[in-house]
Amino acid sequence: MDLDLDIDGAALTAQLVDVPSVSGEEGPLADAIERALAPLAHLTVSRDGHTIVARTELGRPERVILAGHIDTVPVAGNLPSRADGARLYGCGTSDMKSGVAVQLRLAAQLPAPSRDVTYVFYECEEVAAERNGLLRLSRSAPELLAGDFAVLLEPTAGQVEGGCQGTLRADVTAAGKRAHTARSWMGRNAIHEADGILRVLRAYTPREPEVDGLRYHEGLNAVAIRGGVAGNVVPDECVVTVNYRFAPDLSAAEAEAYIRSLFSSWEVSVLDVAPGARPGLTAPAAAAFVAAVGGTPRAKLGWTDVARFAELGIPAVNYGPGISEIAHTPGEYVETAQIVAAEDRLRAWLTD
Amino acid sequence: MDLDLDIDGAALTAQLVDVPSVSGEEGPLADAIERALAPLAHLTVSRDGHTIVARTELGRPERVILAGHIDTVPVAGNLPSRADGARLYGCGTSDMKSGVAVQLRLAAQLPAPSRDVTYVFYECEEVAAERNGLLRLSRSAPELLAGDFAVLLEPTAGQVEGGCQGTLRADVTAAGKRAHTARSWMGRNAIHEADGILRVLRAYTPREPEVDGLRYHEGLNAVAIRGGVAGNVVPDECVVTVNYRFAPDLSAAEAEAYIRSLFSSWEVSVLDVAPGARPGLTAPAAAAFVAAVGGTPRAKLGWTDVARFAELGIPAVNYGPGISEIAHTPGEYVETAQIVAAEDRLRAWLTD
Repeated sequence: MDLDLDIDGAALTAQLVDVPSVSGEEGPLADAIERALAPLAHLTVSRDGHTIVARTELGRPERVILAGHIDTVPVAGNLPSRADGARLYGCGTSDMKSGVAVQLRLAAQLPAPSRDVTYVFYECEEVAAERNGLLRLSRSAPELLAGDFAVLLEPTAGQVEGGCQGTLRADVTAAGKRAHTARSWMGRNAIHEADGILRVLRAYTPREPEVDGLRYHEGLNAVAIRGGVAGNVVPDECVVTVNYRFAPDLSAAEAEAYIRSLFSSWEVSVLDVAPGARPGLTAPAAAAFVAAVGGTPRAKLGWTDVARFAELGIPAVNYGPGISEIAHTPGEYVETAQIVAAEDRLRAWLTD
Repeated sequence: MDLDLDIDGAALTAQLVDVPSVSGEEGPLADAIERALAPLAHLTVSRDGHTIVARTELGRPERVILAGHIDTVPVAGNLPSRADGARLYGCGTSDMKSGVAVQLRLAAQLPAPSRDVTYVFYECEEVAAERNGLLRLSRSAPELLAGDFAVLLEPTAGQVEGGCQGTLRADVTAAGKRAHTARSWMGRNAIHEADGILRVLRAYTPREPEVDGLRYHEGLNAVAIRGGVAGNVVPDECVVTVNYRFAPDLSAAEAEAYIRSLFSSWEVSVLDVAPGARPGLTAPAAAAFVAAVGGTPRAKLGWTDVARFAELGIPAVNYGPGISEIAHTPGEYVETAQIVAAEDRLRAWLTD
């Protein structure tokens, strides 16, 4: 499969969608991207696993990064892609092969952008953090991620979304004492005790803080519950896994302290935590970008890889075609007009 | 392995314990029991799977049944058996190879009991009801289970325990609506909703009715809880499996109606129900037995196969050596004095 970077963004999105690339199986798509970019004289192309990096080397005073992941969640009977009027349906249309199409078009068509550009096409964003291509690249070749500002082309329906909320998962465990259910008063039922954990969750009122001018919205949810030994045994343990989405005015340590205080009556074990990222829209590079693409920035509620750029000290925003709310659903689609608009605005910014 | 029915009950129990017979693997022990009983001229021996039946055919006006299961729960590092002073330790010592030893000794040593006796040694009591040897025998050869009264030699520490409580398991399901946890207010968390189910369980006050003179004690417990889709998804379902232990003044249908009314706000799906058995100690055969073995009868709280005899119209009680509370634990043991006492009292009853 050879990609044609001269066709319009919607048609190129369809080509990309029709090369399945579920996390871990990005090889063929990475190959196609590498083959399409390698011949272009104005780009220096590198590869790390199934992550492709293409850079202009024009000596401009400013370097910006356009990044997008090339993997998708598992296909859900929604391949090949299908055009229907103003929409293109299929796995990855919104999240985020339409964004990747925009990156590829700009990479091919802008031999002399006003800012040096690093295009990053990376693997394994939809799976465990350790496999994330951007994280791997930041460890194996951090010089390839140097830059003054980054745009992550995650689906934001063409609005600038600043920063991202952090996410923490923890197991909260209610303990009890086993007994035969025929003599249950000899034990203490841990599932019944977990009632208190659920009460805390129901009573929780989310914070909605303003951070650097954007309004965030936290959330605290049980995402799993498990308990039980056998059909005739009073169980001695019930574990509630909670997911705390926290605004970027809290550090990971502060988020953890909050969860521990909220559930201080139970054993709390933190499973993983990813800090959020402040929107950072006051940085000059970010402000210039917002001015160029227009619109009113809003807060990004989901966690995205902008947090990785934040950890590298690079201001970053989310901006791309597609709708995040329908990502990961069988009915995923993208409005093709959004692909054109995103490409046009980014081109204007990179040639101003 | 050949069993020696002339050694004392404790030594015979050790022999039985040392032939492992986890449910489904009773073959070698059933073979040994059949080999030991078949040569005895006063017994007619039949076999159904790994269930052995031995009957006297003396034409007595009354026939009684002594029944015991020969299987055990999985071995827990507690084989071979180990004698320690007045106790014999090992898998099945209490539940219920000491009772089986008493059956075997009586079968061998009482060629002319005062009542005709049917000794039943059956398989698969510790697993799903459909595999239960007593149930299978009641279908394949019900004539072998004819009788006026039955004693089940389950561990009761040498006390007569009348009847048994019924048991019902049901799934109670809280429903919700999926959403990404970063925008959880777009969904409804089913695990949080299950809080109401747990509140009902915590508020439950057990009935303690007197039935035929014995005091029962009900119980209602969550025995399992499950819910969760993924670490970043508000779950749309949470299922609580409850186990209701009900006194034998309620029928299975009444128990089910009670559970459905208690959880009327949620979807209830009954998984299985086994009716209890009234103690029936007023039946003449039962009263004669209680008079012969002595002590004050108490209610059996756990479900046992006396309920099967009740369904066949045969009054039945639990009476045997061993301690039910330590059954199914790695530290299971039996007081050897209880083996001797149970054998002596049953012999007195069968020769009066």
